[in-house]
Amino acid sequence: MQKKDCVINDNNDNNDNTQNLCHVTNTLSHSNKRGNIRLVGAGPGDPKLLTLSAYQAIQEADLILSDKLVSEEVLELIPKHTEVFIAARKFCANVEAAQAELNRVGLDALNLGKYVVRLKQGDPFLFGRGGEEFLFYQSHGYIPQVIPGVSSCMSAPLLANIPVTHRGVASQFLVCTGTGKKNTIPEIPAYNPIRTTVFLMACHRIRDITKDLMEKGNYPSDCPCVVIEKASFMDQREIRGTVSTIADIIDREGHTPPGTFVVGNACTVLSKQL
Amino acid sequence: MQKKDCVINDNNDNNDNTQNLCHVTNTLSHSNKRGNIRLVGAGPGDPKLLTLSAYQAIQEADLILSDKLVSEEVLELIPKHTEVFIAARKFCANVEAAQAELNRVGLDALNLGKYVVRLKQGDPFLFGRGGEEFLFYQSHGYIPQVIPGVSSCMSAPLLANIPVTHRGVASQFLVCTGTGKKNTIPEIPAYNPIRTTVFLMACHRIRDITKDLMEKGNYPSDCPCVVIEKASFMDQREIRGTVSTIADIIDREGHTPPGTFVVGNACTVLSKQL
Repeated sequence: MQKKDCVINDNNDNNDNTQNLCHVTNTLSHSNKRGNIRLVGAGPGDPKLLTLSAYQAIQEADLILSDKLVSEEVLELIPKHTEVFIAARKFCANVEAAQAELNRVGLDALNLGKYVVRLKQGDPFLFGRGGEEFLFYQSHGYIPQVIPGVSSCMSAPLLANIPVTHRGVASQFLVCTGTGKKNTIPEIPAYNPIRTTVFLMACHRIRDITKDLMEKGNYPSDCPCVVIEKASFMDQREIRGTVSTIADIIDREGHTPPGTFVVGNACTVLSKQL
Repeated sequence: MQKKDCVINDNNDNNDNTQNLCHVTNTLSHSNKRGNIRLVGAGPGDPKLLTLSAYQAIQEADLILSDKLVSEEVLELIPKHTEVFIAARKFCANVEAAQAELNRVGLDALNLGKYVVRLKQGDPFLFGRGGEEFLFYQSHGYIPQVIPGVSSCMSAPLLANIPVTHRGVASQFLVCTGTGKKNTIPEIPAYNPIRTTVFLMACHRIRDITKDLMEKGNYPSDCPCVVIEKASFMDQREIRGTVSTIADIIDREGHTPPGTFVVGNACTVLSKQL
């Protein structure tokens, strides 16, 4: 296997996400013998946080593939005549089966020449197996176009008035999964005072994670943190604390997943509670 | 000064970004005596990557404040009757003066009761002083609504077919500035094989940064990396290499800023050059 160490890509090949963005209507042809597929970021939940490109893709699709993570409010934008397939579950034990089923339904539609849109919560390429879906379709001869979305890793903090970077406070921004291999605690990054760390899918194990942050990551016990619940929805809720108090606060106040867990000094930089 | 360690925010106060998103038109009143301001993410450049919310804000504004970083294509969406103020420069030495002028123009308009939109490239709260602008307006009694945008930190890799996370390859995603305090080389994060690292505003000093990645960060010399130039534009271009070769490749091939510099094993995971 020869590994090239330099490829200049001037966007003249087919494996290109960009060139069609400005000319969606011109480059999509429903009369193609072979179908087209897009992996589309559906944003954090509020349909107003869809991109214009995502909105257009939803309006034009023959078939929309989704899962339970995409918000009802976004799904309501789908035209009534559009075929929709929503994977039965995507949270729990049968993730693999649900994923295989979505892929199969998508591929069948592509082989019938349909224009398929796979809606993915947030951004298609931040967690959620977007890359794996890309490889699946690519292996069957379909190069997906991928449309970025607003990810909750930044928008949840923003909507809680937390700038993930702020001059003199935070100049780095780290996104981690809250769930490691085989549902273990993920690798805990060492404390860095100039870094904002966001854990996604972490709130069900926040006690273990905060314990590890202090014991393994050397986070100060008074390092501010915030859990943002249902970011961008009308009932968004923020639960503020420190790495030593947040688990108790959540036990006391309750928490409805999904939530975004933000840790670092930027959490309080715009807050009146400073 | 009393520091609270717990604040439950149920979105019943004024310092709230979310509650208005779904009802923009209802909650904005141009007849208010005092103006309204939004800090709005303009995305990476292609206007189709604006959110619906950003698009609506642009259409409704009395005054739009921008700088040279926001793309011409986005600025062309501004209605002809809308007042626009674009800071003379925002790249170079007179950043402070340009920022102060933008703030002053914005505040004057607010005091006249206008609806002001401050367009910011990418996401308003990832670099670019969005938090500082928030504090400026807040200190004058105006609480900005902040509308997230698609940031190039994720969309530039995505549009170059790089998933910033990918199961078995990368489970963490780190965003750094390429420019430290007083224009120095920024803090270099240590190598982590399961992490994708993105440097923004880094390409003018890529030789120094890659040298430090290898010498201070212990990055392997063959760690794949990509510079994405003009992400989302029709003339997007990707320059691929390794941390030991990319600076030479850029010297040879040339590079037009701005660019996004992506480092890590995820760079090649969807690529046919594997």
